Amino acid sequence: MCRAGQRTMGQIFHGSRISNIEITDTLFGGYLTLVAEKIVPYQWNILNGKVAGAKISHCMENFRIAAGEREGQHSGVVFGDTDAYKWLETVAYCIANGKGAGLEPLADTLIELIGRAQESDGYLNTYYTIDHPSEKWTNLAEGHELYNAGHLIEAAVAYYRATGKTALLDIAVKCADLICRIFGADGEKPDGCPGHPEIELALIKLRDATQNDAYLGMARHFVRVRGASPNYLLDELERLADNRIFPEFVDYDAKYAQTHLPPVEQTSAEGHAVRAMYLYSAMADLAAVCEDADLAAACAVLWDNVTRKKMYITGGIGASAYLERFTADYDLPNDRMYCESCASVGLMMFGQRMASLTGKAAFYDEVERALCNTVLGGVAMTGDRYFYVNPLEVWPPNCLPSTSMAHVKPVRQKWFDVACCPTNIARTLASLGQYIYAENDEALYVNMLISSRILTELNGGTLTVTVDSTFMRDGRVNISVSSDRPQKIRVRIPRYFANPHFASSVAFPEPGADGYTELSAPGGTHTFCLQGEVTPAFFASNEQVRADAGRLALVMGPYVYCLEEADNGGNLANIFVKPETEIEVGRSCEDIPGSLPLLHFGGERVTKAIEEDGDLYGTPLFRRTGTRLTAVPYGLWNNRTPGEMTVWLKALL
Amino acid sequence: MCRAGQRTMGQIFHGSRISNIEITDTLFGGYLTLVAEKIVPYQWNILNGKVAGAKISHCMENFRIAAGEREGQHSGVVFGDTDAYKWLETVAYCIANGKGAGLEPLADTLIELIGRAQESDGYLNTYYTIDHPSEKWTNLAEGHELYNAGHLIEAAVAYYRATGKTALLDIAVKCADLICRIFGADGEKPDGCPGHPEIELALIKLRDATQNDAYLGMARHFVRVRGASPNYLLDELERLADNRIFPEFVDYDAKYAQTHLPPVEQTSAEGHAVRAMYLYSAMADLAAVCEDADLAAACAVLWDNVTRKKMYITGGIGASAYLERFTADYDLPNDRMYCESCASVGLMMFGQRMASLTGKAAFYDEVERALCNTVLGGVAMTGDRYFYVNPLEVWPPNCLPSTSMAHVKPVRQKWFDVACCPTNIARTLASLGQYIYAENDEALYVNMLISSRILTELNGGTLTVTVDSTFMRDGRVNISVSSDRPQKIRVRIPRYFANPHFASSVAFPEPGADGYTELSAPGGTHTFCLQGEVTPAFFASNEQVRADAGRLALVMGPYVYCLEEADNGGNLANIFVKPETEIEVGRSCEDIPGSLPLLHFGGERVTKAIEEDGDLYGTPLFRRTGTRLTAVPYGLWNNRTPGEMTVWLKALL
Repeated sequence: MCRAGQRTMGQIFHGSRISNIEITDTLFGGYLTLVAEKIVPYQWNILNGKVAGAKISHCMENFRIAAGEREGQHSGVVFGDTDAYKWLETVAYCIANGKGAGLEPLADTLIELIGRAQESDGYLNTYYTIDHPSEKWTNLAEGHELYNAGHLIEAAVAYYRATGKTALLDIAVKCADLICRIFGADGEKPDGCPGHPEIELALIKLRDATQNDAYLGMARHFVRVRGASPNYLLDELERLADNRIFPEFVDYDAKYAQTHLPPVEQTSAEGHAVRAMYLYSAMADLAAVCEDADLAAACAVLWDNVTRKKMYITGGIGASAYLERFTADYDLPNDRMYCESCASVGLMMFGQRMASLTGKAAFYDEVERALCNTVLGGVAMTGDRYFYVNPLEVWPPNCLPSTSMAHVKPVRQKWFDVACCPTNIARTLASLGQYIYAENDEALYVNMLISSRILTELNGGTLTVTVDSTFMRDGRVNISVSSDRPQKIRVRIPRYFANPHFASSVAFPEPGADGYTELSAPGGTHTFCLQGEVTPAFFASNEQVRADAGRLALVMGPYVYCLEEADNGGNLANIFVKPETEIEVGRSCEDIPGSLPLLHFGGERVTKAIEEDGDLYGTPLFRRTGTRLTAVPYGLWNNRTPGEMTVWLKALL
Repeated sequence: MCRAGQRTMGQIFHGSRISNIEITDTLFGGYLTLVAEKIVPYQWNILNGKVAGAKISHCMENFRIAAGEREGQHSGVVFGDTDAYKWLETVAYCIANGKGAGLEPLADTLIELIGRAQESDGYLNTYYTIDHPSEKWTNLAEGHELYNAGHLIEAAVAYYRATGKTALLDIAVKCADLICRIFGADGEKPDGCPGHPEIELALIKLRDATQNDAYLGMARHFVRVRGASPNYLLDELERLADNRIFPEFVDYDAKYAQTHLPPVEQTSAEGHAVRAMYLYSAMADLAAVCEDADLAAACAVLWDNVTRKKMYITGGIGASAYLERFTADYDLPNDRMYCESCASVGLMMFGQRMASLTGKAAFYDEVERALCNTVLGGVAMTGDRYFYVNPLEVWPPNCLPSTSMAHVKPVRQKWFDVACCPTNIARTLASLGQYIYAENDEALYVNMLISSRILTELNGGTLTVTVDSTFMRDGRVNISVSSDRPQKIRVRIPRYFANPHFASSVAFPEPGADGYTELSAPGGTHTFCLQGEVTPAFFASNEQVRADAGRLALVMGPYVYCLEEADNGGNLANIFVKPETEIEVGRSCEDIPGSLPLLHFGGERVTKAIEEDGDLYGTPLFRRTGTRLTAVPYGLWNNRTPGEMTVWLKALL
């Protein structure tokens, strides 16, 4: 049984509408403004090939060629169309969050172009339309047609909700209807599943927007058919022989695209990390909508495997750069991993859905971890430079082209040949409200203590909740509730918000088993003044994590801190700290956005390791000098003079 | 000016003839027997495709097809013929060192086959002869025709010297003459240089064997033309467009094959590590033979760069697995590097030549380092398993296929698709005598204190020197000299042989500026009883080596030691030791060849790093327990139950 409806998807709660939410937070509000005012225009120029010195994107040109308005060949990666779709989705969220009003005409122009590029039967994919029309749907493993359609649908639903306009939704519906005609459980249709999951979760959104259950059925089918034997994607690649798109797919295996087992039987996060997150997100959606206990159980096991065995302290995932994939439990190398920005976006999506599915606050520990560290770290404070790979340790001299470290860039880049991350970060930040607030029939949920305001309807009344959060400075979070009747506000009290209490003498309600503290607003206007202790602390890794053995990471609130060469000089590998070192909370730094405090502490630096000057190996000396160190939030690193960076420091045991 | 002659190549000294030398050392003598009795027969079976479960080698079959004796296509890599040539070279050294008498008939059969596979003009390369006859010499960057010819020539010279037979030498000469007709400084001829250096040093050997100076001229030309502008190899690859052999050559650059500058102007070791070593070896040969001071100076600078900034403590080189190349100075990651066995063979070759060129003993510090650690580590004590990649730290669970760590194998392999290493190790061990002894008009040189005996002629007299070395047990090395007249024996006293003195009260001669101690043998029979102190000690790396910061490696004599899971349990990353820890020299282990002592010492093991059971990150606990540790020579690791291994231990500072 699968229930319908946008507000009642069967989850315990669902994300609130972005259009009801204003983000006022110094840090995140600033980034939301950056998205609307800098990132969206910058990315528009990029997608039109107009940024000097950047990797050339042919994205918009491909649509024009597909529409028959220009001559030429398709150029760029097979999934290049999604850059435009994610750009549109970002614009939609900007419009919804109140910062992007001026962007609508540009978006409408693009939507018209996309419409003209769509074939009459609904097919929409410039790579195949322009250069490979006879090969449609023959290479699901590599062709990304269903992935492209998924991002089209997500953009369409977002734009429809933000503007009420149906032009893009109509395009998406036409494309989705084509896909429903081609694929499905009907024995006549091919048993294919998407080579890159994405359309599954998009179809669920489309069903919510259109109330057409066919899309939900299609999503369920794509999840159910995955992992069937014989393996559709492997057979396809074998059939394609030399006519393949990606050279590295010589090392393709069933785990790469999570087709090694039916999703419901999967217990270990495997393969390409972004593919995994998008699939698991759809599984969690379906588990909720269809009340599928087996799928829910599989999601819980996979979530645990990811977050308890395969996730960096920054919320990064994907330890292998080659094929951008998960490896073994506890394999978390700090310098050479992938930790793609998109994968952490995917972790946020999966965590949000797990919280919705289970009603448990703890999933937001990891959503917040990914957001505040890796996702934030993926974009420069100027909005025009991006990280694709997010290492926890960088030594610029060894980030060399044509070597095993070529994927690690010591500075953010203007653009990429494969440019999924910049637009993914943009749409995630622009839609941040959905990660902060959630609702069900009983309560409004505050999942992250980020300063913001929501105006919504609950229990037949209107409700305004304002979160004024300064906990990184003083441990305070004021939650003001204005309502025309009594309402319940359920607040996630993060683990780092120690000793939570009210500024008044009123007893603080113990969080329930679900991790939420319930605040009862009596009606009218009432302010809850929450006070906690948010202090910096060193963390260590489970002893199974070889890469972090004997090492410490500095964390304050949801923010992982790191040392940068700009503050501490180079050769950070030779810095050692005692676990019991006192950490001073400093002022914020003008050159780093968001007014987060810098952290200062004492350490020791090995200035000479061997007795013999200039030798490579020699008698240990380990000459040490005391040094005062400054740490900055990892999510904001590389916004000043580039150089070395490290999250994990060596402990003096 | 280039001087001729096998014994008077212009070097300060040259390697002694292998046929004059018997290796009696427990460890190395055992390996030499292993080569003759196990490795050569095993590799013969491999090359004939007869070892079940191993990667299939089509090597011999290719020769049969090229000879017109079988139908079929070429199979295997483009340089597959060299497996046969290095096998022959190994057999030649086995015959010369007295252990391979029975192998000669088999070798002669193969030589006949090779002769039949050679084209009438001297061309010999089964890949091109069978499948690509029209493409000869059009792809020097990838085609390996000159590299193949080089190994043919090396084998031919070795076989001729060992047996006096000229069949293979005739084949090689015919091939070399063809190359001399095709390439050269003549303006009509293509300005190409070998994509993989090797033929240069081989041609110098061929000139010594034949006294034909044309080969020396050709070698000089190939070195001189390298790095010229425009770049021949880059132009070639561009011309070839999609008709290329190696997919990874999309990332080919001028440094990869050391064509970024003329060799004489190169100051930093760059590119593919094996290519670099073979080129530098030829440069050192030419510097000696042609008394080319500029070339000698370049060699010295390159040697310093390699050994003082880019070499692992095990003598491994090549930090990037991708393109198997050098990276930045001091970039020496311990788990993911390449450290190909062949590259350390090449380092031995380069070091040997630098010692010959300069007369300085210190070069043998690194020759011995590479030999005793990485080269020895490349082969199992059973002779039928090999490492290609030689990491200093292995955690088997993350050595996964289709990931960035796929190149690291936690156990030695039966064979490889690219199988250069097994035969390279074999020919190096079989010819070990050339690395121990050297001669010039004044003295016999003992470069490594490995038990052995040499019978040679010097100053018009006969001379027998016997080295009886037990320094790893008791610090003793007895050098017995029998001669019909007074002779000088110049002995390299390694740095690890501390406080050298004679067992008698005779004063020990101070080593000269060249690092050699000169022993004056009066004639008749005289034994010098050398006594030193060879003790285990921890070493550290230069503080610029980020990967080894705060870490210790245990070394005794020329042997780097490592911890294996078999002795110490798993999770070696969590073991910590104090730099001042006392190390106990234990007995040798029956399961490990060579009677080298095990080393025992106390350390601490972190058994629980965080307070929260099962969490991935948490409050540091670093619960430690004392533990007794056992280290084994790295060159002999992985001869028992496979598991984790580490060379560098964390120091308790």
